[in-house]
Amino acid sequence: MRIGLVARFDMPEAVELAGRVASFLLNRGVELTVDLKLTEELPILREYGADIRDMDADMIVTIGGDGTILRTQSLIEGKEIPILGINMGTVGFLTEVDPENVFSALEDVLMGEYAVEKRTLLSVHHNGKLPLALNEVVMMTRKPAKMLHIEISVDDEIVEELRADGIIIATPSGSTAYSMSAGGPIVDPRVEAFLIVPICPFKLSARPIVVSNKSTIKVKLLRKGKKAIAVIDGQYEEEINHMDEVIFRKSDSCAHFVRLSKDFYRKVREKLIEGGIDSIKGH
Amino acid sequence: MRIGLVARFDMPEAVELAGRVASFLLNRGVELTVDLKLTEELPILREYGADIRDMDADMIVTIGGDGTILRTQSLIEGKEIPILGINMGTVGFLTEVDPENVFSALEDVLMGEYAVEKRTLLSVHHNGKLPLALNEVVMMTRKPAKMLHIEISVDDEIVEELRADGIIIATPSGSTAYSMSAGGPIVDPRVEAFLIVPICPFKLSARPIVVSNKSTIKVKLLRKGKKAIAVIDGQYEEEINHMDEVIFRKSDSCAHFVRLSKDFYRKVREKLIEGGIDSIKGH
Amino acid sequence: MRIGLVARFDMPEAVELAGRVASFLLNRGVELTVDLKLTEELPILREYGADIRDMDADMIVTIGGDGTILRTQSLIEGKEIPILGINMGTVGFLTEVDPENVFSALEDVLMGEYAVEKRTLLSVHHNGKLPLALNEVVMMTRKPAKMLHIEISVDDEIVEELRADGIIIATPSGSTAYSMSAGGPIVDPRVEAFLIVPICPFKLSARPIVVSNKSTIKVKLLRKGKKAIAVIDGQYEEEINHMDEVIFRKSDSCAHFVRLSKDFYRKVREKLIEGGIDSIKGH
Amino acid sequence: MRIGLVARFDMPEAVELAGRVASFLLNRGVELTVDLKLTEELPILREYGADIRDMDADMIVTIGGDGTILRTQSLIEGKEIPILGINMGTVGFLTEVDPENVFSALEDVLMGEYAVEKRTLLSVHHNGKLPLALNEVVMMTRKPAKMLHIEISVDDEIVEELRADGIIIATPSGSTAYSMSAGGPIVDPRVEAFLIVPICPFKLSARPIVVSNKSTIKVKLLRKGKKAIAVIDGQYEEEINHMDEVIFRKSDSCAHFVRLSKDFYRKVREKLIEGGIDSIKGH
Repeated sequence: MRIGLVARFDMPEAVELAGRVASFLLNRGVELTVDLKLTEELPILREYGADIRDMDADMIVTIGGDGTILRTQSLIEGKEIPILGINMGTVGFLTEVDPENVFSALEDVLMGEYAVEKRTLLSVHHNGKLPLALNEVVMMTRKPAKMLHIEISVDDEIVEELRADGIIIATPSGSTAYSMSAGGPIVDPRVEAFLIVPICPFKLSARPIVVSNKSTIKVKLLRKGKKAIAVIDGQYEEEINHMDEVIFRKSDSCAHFVRLSKDFYRKVREKLIEGGIDSIKGH
Repeated sequence: MRIGLVARFDMPEAVELAGRVASFLLNRGVELTVDLKLTEELPILREYGADIRDMDADMIVTIGGDGTILRTQSLIEGKEIPILGINMGTVGFLTEVDPENVFSALEDVLMGEYAVEKRTLLSVHHNGKLPLALNEVVMMTRKPAKMLHIEISVDDEIVEELRADGIIIATPSGSTAYSMSAGGPIVDPRVEAFLIVPICPFKLSARPIVVSNKSTIKVKLLRKGKKAIAVIDGQYEEEINHMDEVIFRKSDSCAHFVRLSKDFYRKVREKLIEGGIDSIKGH
Repeated sequence: MRIGLVARFDMPEAVELAGRVASFLLNRGVELTVDLKLTEELPILREYGADIRDMDADMIVTIGGDGTILRTQSLIEGKEIPILGINMGTVGFLTEVDPENVFSALEDVLMGEYAVEKRTLLSVHHNGKLPLALNEVVMMTRKPAKMLHIEISVDDEIVEELRADGIIIATPSGSTAYSMSAGGPIVDPRVEAFLIVPICPFKLSARPIVVSNKSTIKVKLLRKGKKAIAVIDGQYEEEINHMDEVIFRKSDSCAHFVRLSKDFYRKVREKLIEGGIDSIKGH
Repeated sequence: MRIGLVARFDMPEAVELAGRVASFLLNRGVELTVDLKLTEELPILREYGADIRDMDADMIVTIGGDGTILRTQSLIEGKEIPILGINMGTVGFLTEVDPENVFSALEDVLMGEYAVEKRTLLSVHHNGKLPLALNEVVMMTRKPAKMLHIEISVDDEIVEELRADGIIIATPSGSTAYSMSAGGPIVDPRVEAFLIVPICPFKLSARPIVVSNKSTIKVKLLRKGKKAIAVIDGQYEEEINHMDEVIFRKSDSCAHFVRLSKDFYRKVREKLIEGGIDSIKGH
């Protein structure tokens, strides 16, 4: 088995754990490939260094938060490498394993005791193809406290025209992230849908909308002279001009996650509902 | 062609229009079958009288509001007769034709210029099968201002346990009805999902949840001694006792609607977003 | 000093603690007066028995939850006896002391180390004066899932006419109770205002409204043939008929609470925001 | 009587109407003083030109939207000159007169048939005193889609610590503007209160808070290295650094508006609730 290793190199605990995970895997005879930037912090692993984009692995283990997964996923876009996320942060909807269970989880993985869950990716077009989104694309005004004038259409039918600080197009994975802070519902990852959620809409009747993921969503910036910014998964930014259209579709490729238990609603309960946790965004 | 005719017999304008629609259809050689109760108000049609339950027709025309459609649909449950709703009320998400366009719409229908849209129905079990829901099932406390203690599970995984005035399980059709007044999102009818929406939850973190319509939803009443009432489409009531489970699944049968245009989002805009209309429930 | 003692007589822990509190106070030479119903559970205190309505005391200690305080306050209406609430429940916005701190709190009280906080009461008229509300008055449909048609006016100016499951008129004290589950804001008890919060409004643009407590609020039931019920503090019910008006004003009298610390926002944080507590209603 | 005249000089209809208003007033013997920038568009009025800051008038007539009023009010800060707003825009919560009624309204004014309404102003301190806010101060992240970490205190008691895209401190006047798009309640201008409303809070339990306008509100930026921007009434911007505190208090001075009718709730109904109007921000 060939495993890639990625960690937040700016977080000492993540780097330290990455070192121990590397030893563990090497001891079990796993072929290792390690993010080049991580090897700068862990020079002992230098011989295994590789750019994440070039990783040829059966699985990638990420050590960090949802942000680390989102960044890794965007770099391996198109390859179907499942990711096992180890959670070092306060958040962790996409991560699967808490630090105290890392080694028993890796044992399970090496014995093949895991499932791979597919998650829908959102394909975004604006003057060409942009990176895929696993969670969401946020379109926001570039000037804080100034509003956008937006036209939304679904399968070429105009859904709504509104003024708002911004708009979120989210996957079910993203329904528990940014979308939720703007008032969107929780969407079970098995639902074949996307969410359209306005941010601070100036129309009292605006509501979050759930549309089929077989639909094509178009968002058009109507207001003359105004610019917006599209932020993909909190990672990638693209400037949007007046009268530009951004087009959203289900991607043909999926994200793949290693799952050791079936636990969507347990996570929702623990992290959102019972937990009183104060963070729901993965950035 | 054989057409059934149903109207709100307590609304003089609906009865009057029903009389004119009947004449029009008979003149065009349509075979008519008319709701028995309506013939009491329109004795001239007595010979065409039939119980809605027994109507054998290629299409049923209803004259009234969404409530008339919901009641008719529950009576023809299991048969796949498409309904063409003529809107006499303030509401009308399920209706297709406004009174001023009735006769041109019927011309189109007689010339076959229409489509049939399927809408998902929700099957409800509680000590046996209850009537199917087209819009929603509302489970509410029987005592106003007293709360229920509810456990919700999806595919036997517990989703949430909460105290609330009630809970709504809605289809996409129902997303623009009761569910919306409780804070639920708009769901495109093409999305294969159900909505779980708490009513006045006592947990600040409770959110509407969108689940796959392939899932089985169970709602269990936990609080000792408390009774609840389940209301299906505002039409049918069933008493629910402590520790009872109510089980929700996608029905094998669908509701069928005659559509003369593609217009889900136009309706949403006109009736909800732009319209400032003051009513979104079909009761 | 003369202290009244009230406890939830249906809750063995509350009765048991009441016995210990009584001993403690008697040992300190306090004159005791005990709720008659509580003395049925604690016959040793029989000689101190009195109806709460007749209690002549410098302070009343309640052992239970917010419901116990709401009931006691309604029985001593008009007298200005401060209440010290000991919290035995999951809730407790009005209570001041947790069970583990009862005796040190009572020491403080006997040494005069406490403040008395006044809370606004809401006076309610409907065919005569109804009991005062400390938290809120909820007007609800008597038939679950059937809506009311309501006209709201403030100082004889019509504010809104809407259809909804019900409406809440709340004091700042009530802003963290029922009102909050219906979407109302948190109101600092020092704000001289009342809240008007619709329950499941059928108008997407309906919003909670904060009005001056110097204003007179009128709620009128418009829909023919429909009945509603007004529930005051979850304790008292009154039937409201079609075209009836219910009139709300600030009462001349206040509720008085013994406070050992300044802690409104600590309570809000602990109970609502950080706590993940699952209950916000005191009933 | 001496009247100042201000208009949106970038809006031809406003300039044209300003010319007609000036003639009307001069014909009636009113002493006129006209915004210098407006006289550039209306050279015939050049002799009356004055900087708004220096206007010495009994009343100022503004022709534009709420934005024109907010800008004018900030320029005459400290003087108690009542403003009569003529509404040329889609919005207009602060404006009093629609274009078709301008001249009859001016007749009323010249005959003294009007009232002056005071509106609370919010004083803002951050390294010195910033301009007063009539509607609101919005503190937002400078980087779209990146969150702030905020600590809020009221009278030196910590109210909440949260992560959010931003936070709004609003007056009752501002309750129907930006605050409302972020989920805040409507506050009657007679309520002596300020609103604290989080924008896209990452804590599901965060709620709008209504506090007394006698309180001092402090907002502190906790997150290292993050910058925010404070926007006052959509007019003035100030950069806020990490660990900076912004302090909000009721100003000793008020804004003064000419009112020809008592109509707060009529405006609310027309503009927000019945109207289906698509704009609630004055910028």
